[in-house]
Amino acid sequence: MSFTQMPCTQESPVNSNRRRRSIGAAALVATALAVSAASAQTSGIKISDFTLSNGLELVVIPDRRAPVVTHMIWYKVGSADETPGISGLAHFLEHLMFKGTAKHPTGEFSKVVATIGGQENAFTSNDYTGYYQRVPTEQLKTVMEFEADRMTGLQLTDAVVLPERNVILEEQNQRIGNNPRAKLGEQIDAALFLNHPYGRPVIGWRHEMEQLSRDDALAFYRRFYGPNGAVVVIAGDVEPEQTRKLAEETYGKIKRNDLIAPRKRPLEPPPIAPRSLTLADARVEQPFLQRAYLVPSFATAQRGESEALEVLAHILGSGSSSRLYRTLAVDKPVAVSAAAGYDSSALDISKFTVYGSPRPGVTLQQFESEADAVIAEVISKGVSADELERAKSRLIADAIYAQDNQATMARWYGAALMTGAGVQDVQRWPERIRAVTAAEVQDAARKWLDKRRSVTGFLIKDTSPQAEKRS
Amino acid sequence: MSFTQMPCTQESPVNSNRRRRSIGAAALVATALAVSAASAQTSGIKISDFTLSNGLELVVIPDRRAPVVTHMIWYKVGSADETPGISGLAHFLEHLMFKGTAKHPTGEFSKVVATIGGQENAFTSNDYTGYYQRVPTEQLKTVMEFEADRMTGLQLTDAVVLPERNVILEEQNQRIGNNPRAKLGEQIDAALFLNHPYGRPVIGWRHEMEQLSRDDALAFYRRFYGPNGAVVVIAGDVEPEQTRKLAEETYGKIKRNDLIAPRKRPLEPPPIAPRSLTLADARVEQPFLQRAYLVPSFATAQRGESEALEVLAHILGSGSSSRLYRTLAVDKPVAVSAAAGYDSSALDISKFTVYGSPRPGVTLQQFESEADAVIAEVISKGVSADELERAKSRLIADAIYAQDNQATMARWYGAALMTGAGVQDVQRWPERIRAVTAAEVQDAARKWLDKRRSVTGFLIKDTSPQAEKRS
Repeated sequence: MSFTQMPCTQESPVNSNRRRRSIGAAALVATALAVSAASAQTSGIKISDFTLSNGLELVVIPDRRAPVVTHMIWYKVGSADETPGISGLAHFLEHLMFKGTAKHPTGEFSKVVATIGGQENAFTSNDYTGYYQRVPTEQLKTVMEFEADRMTGLQLTDAVVLPERNVILEEQNQRIGNNPRAKLGEQIDAALFLNHPYGRPVIGWRHEMEQLSRDDALAFYRRFYGPNGAVVVIAGDVEPEQTRKLAEETYGKIKRNDLIAPRKRPLEPPPIAPRSLTLADARVEQPFLQRAYLVPSFATAQRGESEALEVLAHILGSGSSSRLYRTLAVDKPVAVSAAAGYDSSALDISKFTVYGSPRPGVTLQQFESEADAVIAEVISKGVSADELERAKSRLIADAIYAQDNQATMARWYGAALMTGAGVQDVQRWPERIRAVTAAEVQDAARKWLDKRRSVTGFLIKDTSPQAEKRS
Repeated sequence: MSFTQMPCTQESPVNSNRRRRSIGAAALVATALAVSAASAQTSGIKISDFTLSNGLELVVIPDRRAPVVTHMIWYKVGSADETPGISGLAHFLEHLMFKGTAKHPTGEFSKVVATIGGQENAFTSNDYTGYYQRVPTEQLKTVMEFEADRMTGLQLTDAVVLPERNVILEEQNQRIGNNPRAKLGEQIDAALFLNHPYGRPVIGWRHEMEQLSRDDALAFYRRFYGPNGAVVVIAGDVEPEQTRKLAEETYGKIKRNDLIAPRKRPLEPPPIAPRSLTLADARVEQPFLQRAYLVPSFATAQRGESEALEVLAHILGSGSSSRLYRTLAVDKPVAVSAAAGYDSSALDISKFTVYGSPRPGVTLQQFESEADAVIAEVISKGVSADELERAKSRLIADAIYAQDNQATMARWYGAALMTGAGVQDVQRWPERIRAVTAAEVQDAARKWLDKRRSVTGFLIKDTSPQAEKRS
């Protein structure tokens, strides 16, 4: 929930006037609880939360600054819910959801949104799949009708499925294949999660993506899509009751899907052996290190632990006054970058990440040992009262500043609701952050920043004669 | 298929007069193709291979040295066929198969075998589950009746399932929990297989074993057990046709199980980043290194590649005249042990392993770099004609010497048939080994002993104050 941008994020901008879909939203949505909670607290926004009789949950966030509304539908299904061997399917289905229904042929929904001057986007993560539109307020019902229609009415033929498979393969190539840091992140995740499906790339393993079929997509759609597997978040110039009525008139007509079951993924065994890996790639210009530790998410943490990890990540590695940056990049200096991040937003176990690049002439091993020394110092001596206060104030302030974007607001609630948190949890986030003590931060560092819980990835330039062929 | 005993094997003796079940048969059954093939060639044994109309395959290996018969039934199901999150179930079911049917209450089968002076055992691997009895020839039909009965007639109650779960938990404790090398092997497998279920321990992840239920076991049993998922191997003083008649009279009466489908597991993505891990354990007296490379099994290899890997493993690391032992333990000497092994017997991708312990005063890193130099030399300069001939002769000779054990013979055929090979493949193994050239051995080393395909595990003594608590 730190505002630090994690490395290797595969997120693309949310507010795009082209349909630019995004994957692996971990980094951006990590701010979910933080920002919307703060805004609720500070501006006194009253969030409404309804559940229709078919199980669909509706969250309404009033935002009257302009006559626009952001409509987001979130499905409780992500790559971690895929069947082993059929990876990439959650994201592939996200693409295919634009392929039309009996009522509305391919492209019609997007065309309508464009015609009314709206924007749309879609995204897939480990834990969820979401679709959103930002439209003039009076068009909300239109959008709801379209979304309700494609919740159960999707029609797919090989003629649309197979070309779209080439699209996601090209996306994989761009996002991962041609991006050494993303490849490193993929390898780290695969080595970090020994049993949990978070080890599987959101976009999928390429050799499995190549085999994805229409039948795979339809089976997945029928198993996971339905009102009782969805949350609709609406932020904008709307009245809660009236919005609920619109939802009843559209989504309310859809039958519950009895195939949708609570999500229960395999858990990690206790991590006992620190791991490392090295990726050599000809395109690397700057060596890079990323260490990922298995830590609790908000949903899996003991009370207060996730908040302590937020504060710890901020003190350790957010911005130029953080411990890591100050020590490694300014005081010594051995690094050109050094940072840390924590993602509280996961249905299951999550990650705490430390990363950066050494200066020319400094090895990754030296960088690592300097970073380890900074971490060791926090563990042995804790953090100062001053650091603690600055971190907490900054986390809460950042959350307030960030509320200006309606889509971001909607997205934060949605992500929280997809990953085991409730509206109340989002709203109480600032008070929980305020309550974090220096002792809790030190305890979190001692307990969770244990190398046995970690994978360290080294990204280096491949200078071998075969390098070009490989990459 | 080298005769080298791999480290960390979880195999227990096959011929035991107590029911001692075994797990992770990789090491011993690795010799499957080798030995029985040689025996077939050299002693002119005629193997018979039948398939009953319900799909059950029957292999009869004549062995007239004594009036005894070894009866083995192999089911095409192992830990790699388990549902993620329910690990250990194949092995748990193996235990539960002794819990009785409507016809024969718990313990009756074992008691009958003991009364007639027989022996019995059972074993589970990644790819298969097997049960065997060695009895006087005239008792063969009795044994077949019992096995046919429990193929579909197993009855389970919580009263027998829950105590047996404690038995497998204790087994996990003994085999893995209290065995640092086995723990290292478990961690290496988990880090080596990023997508394929071979990364899952055969005995299961402990936290999942603790949840295994009667319903899990019965569902697994109903899905995987049946005549069309089984191979019966009979070695002994029997006539093929008469044996087939016995099989028809017993197994032949069982209905085909339509739930049994061809096994198709998720495949590995191309390995691109060498990995390493370190396990520290207070009980380690001698530091130990194990490197595992992903390589093809017999079933997945191009023609001749698996045989070249056999020969390579022998030259590199089998016995005191191997390259690794000679260089590291005799010439330098920096090691107390150094060896290599290859397991050709896997339905999917397999492993080539290099392992050993440095002398006191030599670090694991030095040991590793010396071992790497030995491997690099084979890659750059190949192997000598003399080495090649010695390795091939020895592999074939070992196979001949090993045929004396009837159970071993039966087991080799069974393991081969469970992992994508046929009776013919077993029989032709010696000629395929004879055909391996020095260039093929060098090519195999160059192609497959690429560090990017590997995980290196370091086992060290944990000397921290918390060490005792941890282990």
